[in-house]
Amino acid sequence: MIKAGIIGATGYAGATLVYLLTKHQKTQLVYLSSHSYAGKSFSSIYPGMSSLHLILEEEDIHKAASLCDVVFLALPAGLAKNLITEEILKQTVIIDLGADYRLKNPQVYEQWYHKEAPQPAILAQAVYSLADLDTTRCTTTNLIANPGCYTTCSILTLAPLVKSGLIDSSSIVINAMSGVSGAGRKESTANLFCEVNAGSKAYGVTTHRHTPEIEAALSEIGKTNVMVQFTPHLVPMNRGILATCTARLKPEVTQDDVDQAYARLYNEAPFVNVLAKGLLPETRFTLGTNRIDIAYRIDERTRNIVAIGAIDNLVKGAAGQAVQNMNLRFSLDQTTGLDIDASNPL
Amino acid sequence: MIKAGIIGATGYAGATLVYLLTKHQKTQLVYLSSHSYAGKSFSSIYPGMSSLHLILEEEDIHKAASLCDVVFLALPAGLAKNLITEEILKQTVIIDLGADYRLKNPQVYEQWYHKEAPQPAILAQAVYSLADLDTTRCTTTNLIANPGCYTTCSILTLAPLVKSGLIDSSSIVINAMSGVSGAGRKESTANLFCEVNAGSKAYGVTTHRHTPEIEAALSEIGKTNVMVQFTPHLVPMNRGILATCTARLKPEVTQDDVDQAYARLYNEAPFVNVLAKGLLPETRFTLGTNRIDIAYRIDERTRNIVAIGAIDNLVKGAAGQAVQNMNLRFSLDQTTGLDIDASNPL
Amino acid sequence: MIKAGIIGATGYAGATLVYLLTKHQKTQLVYLSSHSYAGKSFSSIYPGMSSLHLILEEEDIHKAASLCDVVFLALPAGLAKNLITEEILKQTVIIDLGADYRLKNPQVYEQWYHKEAPQPAILAQAVYSLADLDTTRCTTTNLIANPGCYTTCSILTLAPLVKSGLIDSSSIVINAMSGVSGAGRKESTANLFCEVNAGSKAYGVTTHRHTPEIEAALSEIGKTNVMVQFTPHLVPMNRGILATCTARLKPEVTQDDVDQAYARLYNEAPFVNVLAKGLLPETRFTLGTNRIDIAYRIDERTRNIVAIGAIDNLVKGAAGQAVQNMNLRFSLDQTTGLDIDASNPL
Amino acid sequence: MIKAGIIGATGYAGATLVYLLTKHQKTQLVYLSSHSYAGKSFSSIYPGMSSLHLILEEEDIHKAASLCDVVFLALPAGLAKNLITEEILKQTVIIDLGADYRLKNPQVYEQWYHKEAPQPAILAQAVYSLADLDTTRCTTTNLIANPGCYTTCSILTLAPLVKSGLIDSSSIVINAMSGVSGAGRKESTANLFCEVNAGSKAYGVTTHRHTPEIEAALSEIGKTNVMVQFTPHLVPMNRGILATCTARLKPEVTQDDVDQAYARLYNEAPFVNVLAKGLLPETRFTLGTNRIDIAYRIDERTRNIVAIGAIDNLVKGAAGQAVQNMNLRFSLDQTTGLDIDASNPL
Repeated sequence: MIKAGIIGATGYAGATLVYLLTKHQKTQLVYLSSHSYAGKSFSSIYPGMSSLHLILEEEDIHKAASLCDVVFLALPAGLAKNLITEEILKQTVIIDLGADYRLKNPQVYEQWYHKEAPQPAILAQAVYSLADLDTTRCTTTNLIANPGCYTTCSILTLAPLVKSGLIDSSSIVINAMSGVSGAGRKESTANLFCEVNAGSKAYGVTTHRHTPEIEAALSEIGKTNVMVQFTPHLVPMNRGILATCTARLKPEVTQDDVDQAYARLYNEAPFVNVLAKGLLPETRFTLGTNRIDIAYRIDERTRNIVAIGAIDNLVKGAAGQAVQNMNLRFSLDQTTGLDIDASNPL
Repeated sequence: MIKAGIIGATGYAGATLVYLLTKHQKTQLVYLSSHSYAGKSFSSIYPGMSSLHLILEEEDIHKAASLCDVVFLALPAGLAKNLITEEILKQTVIIDLGADYRLKNPQVYEQWYHKEAPQPAILAQAVYSLADLDTTRCTTTNLIANPGCYTTCSILTLAPLVKSGLIDSSSIVINAMSGVSGAGRKESTANLFCEVNAGSKAYGVTTHRHTPEIEAALSEIGKTNVMVQFTPHLVPMNRGILATCTARLKPEVTQDDVDQAYARLYNEAPFVNVLAKGLLPETRFTLGTNRIDIAYRIDERTRNIVAIGAIDNLVKGAAGQAVQNMNLRFSLDQTTGLDIDASNPL
Repeated sequence: MIKAGIIGATGYAGATLVYLLTKHQKTQLVYLSSHSYAGKSFSSIYPGMSSLHLILEEEDIHKAASLCDVVFLALPAGLAKNLITEEILKQTVIIDLGADYRLKNPQVYEQWYHKEAPQPAILAQAVYSLADLDTTRCTTTNLIANPGCYTTCSILTLAPLVKSGLIDSSSIVINAMSGVSGAGRKESTANLFCEVNAGSKAYGVTTHRHTPEIEAALSEIGKTNVMVQFTPHLVPMNRGILATCTARLKPEVTQDDVDQAYARLYNEAPFVNVLAKGLLPETRFTLGTNRIDIAYRIDERTRNIVAIGAIDNLVKGAAGQAVQNMNLRFSLDQTTGLDIDASNPL
Repeated sequence: MIKAGIIGATGYAGATLVYLLTKHQKTQLVYLSSHSYAGKSFSSIYPGMSSLHLILEEEDIHKAASLCDVVFLALPAGLAKNLITEEILKQTVIIDLGADYRLKNPQVYEQWYHKEAPQPAILAQAVYSLADLDTTRCTTTNLIANPGCYTTCSILTLAPLVKSGLIDSSSIVINAMSGVSGAGRKESTANLFCEVNAGSKAYGVTTHRHTPEIEAALSEIGKTNVMVQFTPHLVPMNRGILATCTARLKPEVTQDDVDQAYARLYNEAPFVNVLAKGLLPETRFTLGTNRIDIAYRIDERTRNIVAIGAIDNLVKGAAGQAVQNMNLRFSLDQTTGLDIDASNPL
C-alpha cells in the first residue's frame, strides 16, 4: 500500500483527494492536515465522509514526509514553495496541486502571481505533468506540479490543433466557465450563495493566472510562441469547467486533418473522450470523473474552428489528475481508483 | 457473475441502477430496455456513461427473464403488475422499484393508486424488503418489492420510536422535501428548469401515494394501527430527500430511552448513520451513497420529538436499495458495490 | 414627501428596503448607513441599483433621527435596543425590522435570544404590527416592531383557524423552509454557494427564535395559550418562505367552517391571497411582492388540517411589510409602492 | 391609454410583457391570446399575476387588430409572418418579438431559419429597432421587428468599437451564455430541471440563428462587412445573458479612443450603463430591468479588447425592449414603465 498524506485536506480540492484516496485500492491515507480545523476529525468537517475518522493535524511537512510515500499539497498559491526543500524531496514524493511549481520561468511567475518565485534549485526538479499528453514525464521525479483546472481543460482541448500546426497560433481565444468550487472554500461575501446563485459573470479579464500556464504548455506543444486571450467566467453550479476555444484555421486545413489530429493524440488516452459527431460536451456528464469530453466544429463560413472541452474541475482539474500522476509515479495503471463514468442527474 | 437486466433503464432510477451495476464487481449487465429509446445505445442517452455501449431494447420481459438472473423493473406505477407472471417468477428474480407490489392490501392500493390491484397469487409472493430493518426477508423470494423514496426515509427515521412504543402513534406528522429527480424524467411543463428553480412548494397534500406505504410499515413495526399526516414538498435540487418527523412523546419517555431505541435498532445496520449529538442531517452529505443520516431532538417544552432523516432519493430511495436487496438475495455482503461515503461539494 | 433613513442598509433586508423606497412615490431616501461599507456609494455595493449614488454613512442614530421622518433599523438581534431612546422616539418614527422589540415579555426575550432585554420603558411603547391582521395598531406609535419572516408566514397562515377556535391549539406543527437570504449577508463558510447549493437541511430544531414570536401572536389571536413545534429548513434558493402548518381539527369542524374563517379574516386584506380550490402556494409566485398566498386541505382520514403559506422573505417577511407599516403610520394607502403581482420565471 | 394586445401571452417573453404592461401607467391590456391555454384566465397559468383575471383567447389577429392600438407578437419563428398582412398593418401597430422580420435579406433568413422568407411587401415595411442605438427609427412604422436577446446584448456591447472603426472587423469572437428561459416554455426533456441544473454547455455552435442578425446590424453600424464567430451557451439560471466579445484592436488604438467611443454612443442612452473602471457586469444586477451593463478591458499584451455586456434576456432582450419601442412609437418617454434598477439578491 502507498502511504499518502494531504496538506490542506479541508479545502475543496483537498477533500476531493481524501474521497478519491479513500476509495483507491492501493493507497492508505495516513496523514491529513488542515490549518483551520486542526484537532477535529475529517468527518466532522465533511460529514459525507461518515466513515473517515482520521484527525486533522496542524501542518507539518516534516512529519508528513516521514510518514508518507507521497504527500499531496492542496494550498493557496505561494504557500507550497515555502514548504518544499531538498531534504523533503529526498524523503517523499510531493504532488503539488497548487501553482508554485507550474511555471518554469520565474519572471513569469512573479509577474502573474505578484509573489517571489520558488527557489531555482527546487523549481528545476519540478515536473509539470499533464499525463494525458505524456504519461512518462512524472515517473521518476519527486516533485510533480499538477496542472490547474482551467489549464487542463484548455490545453487538452487545443493540443491536437497546436501540435499539428492546424491553427494560427496568434488567434486563440479561450472563454471558459467554472463552477463555484473553483473559488475555494474560504469565507468571502463574494461567494455566498445569494451573491452567486442566479447570475453569471466574467472575472480576471486579461489578468487570470492560468493564462501563462496555458501559453507555456501550448508553446511547448506547438514548438512556437503561443499567446492566448483567456477569459474565465463564474456560473451558478458547484463543479465543472467548460472551455470554448476559438481559433483561425490555416488555409487548406480540412475536417479530415482535424479529425486525424485529435485521433492521433488521444486514441490511447483513457481519460480523453473525443465525442462522436453531433455531440457537444456538457459539464454534468463529467461530474465525479477524471474524464475530459471534447468536441469541435469547423465553421467554413468564417474558417474558424470552435473546440470545446468539459471537465470536473475538482477531479480532472485537481484531485483526480493528482491521483493519475501518483498512479504513474508509483507504476500503477493510470486509471486505478479513478472513474471514467458519471451518474446523472447528479 | 450475476447476470442483470433492467426494464425502464433510461428513467432516473433506472439510469442510477445502470451506473451502480456497472461498478458492481459481482454483476454483469446483459439486458437494458427503454420504451422511449429502443435501438439507441445507453451512452447516447446518458453520455456520462461514456463506456457503456449496450443497446437499449424494446421491453420484453420474457427475453429479460431468459437472459438474466435478476431483472429490475423501474417503471411508472401500474405497469409492472402487467408484466409479472408465475412463469416469469420461475425463471428469474424480479426486483420491482415501482409501487405495484408494495401494498399487501389490494383495496388500499386501488384507493390510493386508482388502478386495479395486482393479481392476488402474484402479490402473495411479493416481499416488501426494507433491508435496513430486516436483512432476512428477501433472501428466498423471487419477487422483491423495493420501498419508495419518501417511505424509506420516513420509515427508517421513525422506526425506533414506533417499535419501542415511545410516541403517541396518532400524532405523527411527516414533512418531507425532495429533489426534482423524484418526479422522473418525463416531459412536462411543471418540471422545466424555469418552473422549478428558485421556488419551493408542497404537493399531493393529504393524497400522496407513499402515505399508505409508510402507514403499513410503521403499523407492522409498532404492532398497532399507525396513521400519519404526510406532506411532500419539491425543492430546487436534483437529488435528495429530507424527512422531518414530529410526534408526541409518551409521558415519562427520556432522552436515554430514545437513544437506546435508535442504538438497538441500528447499531448493526451499515447504511444507517445515527449522527453524533449536535449534528443534523443534510441531504448533500448522502449524495451518491446508500446511507441514511438520522438525528433527533426532544423538545422538553412541548414534549414532542423531532426526528430527521436524509437520503439520496435515487440511491437509498431507489437504485441503491435495490442493489442492497439483490446482494442479500444472492448471498453477497449487503454493502457490495454500494458507497457509504459522499464527495462534497457535489 | 416622507424623508426616510435606513440603518443597516447593505444587509439583504436593508437593501430590499432601499429598492422599495427608491420606487415609492411618497418617500425620499435621505440617509443610509452601513457599518461595513461606510464611505462608499450604495450603488458600488449593490450595482443593480445603478442610479442610486447616495453615500453610505457610519451609523449615527442621532443624525438619522434629525434628518428623517422615519428611520428603519435593519440590524442583527441585540443592536437596535442599544440605539433607541426616549429622545430618539420624540424626533422620528422608528420601524425596527429586527427582533428586539417584538416580544413583550422580557424573560422570553432573554431566554430565546440569550441577550439582555430592552429597557422596559421603551419596550412599552413598541407596537408589534402585523398589519394584515390589524391595520390600526401602528398608526400612532413612534416605535413599530416589524414581524419576522417565518413568523409572518406562519401567523397569517394559521390565524383564521386559531381565531375561530377550529383547531386543537396544542397540536400545531409548523415546518417551514426558507431561501438562503434569510441567513443574511455576513461572511460565513456555512452560507457559501457550494455549502448550500444542491442540499437541504433543518436547523435550529426546537430552538429557533421565531418560535416564541409565533406563540405570542397566536396566543393573543386565540385568546388562549398556544405552543407550537416550529422547525425551519434551509433550501437552495435565494428568496422565499413556505410554511406548512399541520393541526388537529376540533370535532365537527367542517370545510365550510374553515372556508368562512379564512374569508372573514382576509376578505379585505389586499396582500393576503387565499388561493382558489385546487391550487397550492409556491414561493416563486410571490417573489418581489408583499403578498402571501395561502391554501389549506382538510384530511378527513386523519382529521388534521394542513394549511400552507408562501411569501417572499425579504419583502413580505421584512422590507415590504415595513413599508406597509410606514404607509399606515403616515396615513397613506397601505399598498402604496408595494407590488401584489410577480413576474415569472424570476 | 394605449390599448394593447399580446399574441403568445403565456410563453416566457409574452408573460413578461403582460407583467410590464400591467404596471405601465399609459397602457391597458385588452387582449391576450394563448394557443395552449385558450379559455383559461391568465392568473391561472401565472399565479404570480394574482390580480390579472383576463381570459386567454384563441389566437385571432383580426380581433386583436380591431381592439388594440398595438399588438405584440411573442411567437416561435415562422408563425408571425403568416399573420401579418397589409390590412392588419393599416389597423394597428405590430411589434414582433420573434425573428421573422429582423433580417432584411430573405436569402439569409431562409438559409439560417430553414423556412420561407416573409412576403417582400410586408418585410419592406418592417423596421428593426434597437432603440438604444437610434430612437427615431421606429416612430412612424406600423411593423417593428424587436431584436433578439443574444443579439441585443452582443450588438450593444460591440457597437462603439465597430462604429468608430477601432477593431479588426474580421476578428470578432462572441461567447455568450444565457439562462434557461431563453429556451422557452415548451415541454422538452432537454429543459427539465434535472437535465439543466448543475451543468453548462455550448449549443448551436456555428449555426445559431442570431449570428446573421448580429452581423447585419454590425455591418450597418460599421459600414463594412462584419462576420462574427458566435457561440451561445446554456447555464443553470432562469434569466440573464452575458456576452463576452473579443476582438483585435487596430494598431495605435488607445484606451482613450475606446473610452470616447463608448461615451459618444451611450452618454444619452438611459438604458446603457457603461460601468465605472474596475467593475465588470454580472447578469444578476440587471434582473428585471431594461438596462444593459457594459465593461471592457484592453489587453496590451495581446492587443485584443475584451468587451462584456449583461442583460436580462426576458426584459432588455425581449419584453422590456418591446415596451421601449412601443413608448417611442407612441411618443412617450422611452423609459416609461421600465425599471433601470434591480433588487438583489433576486
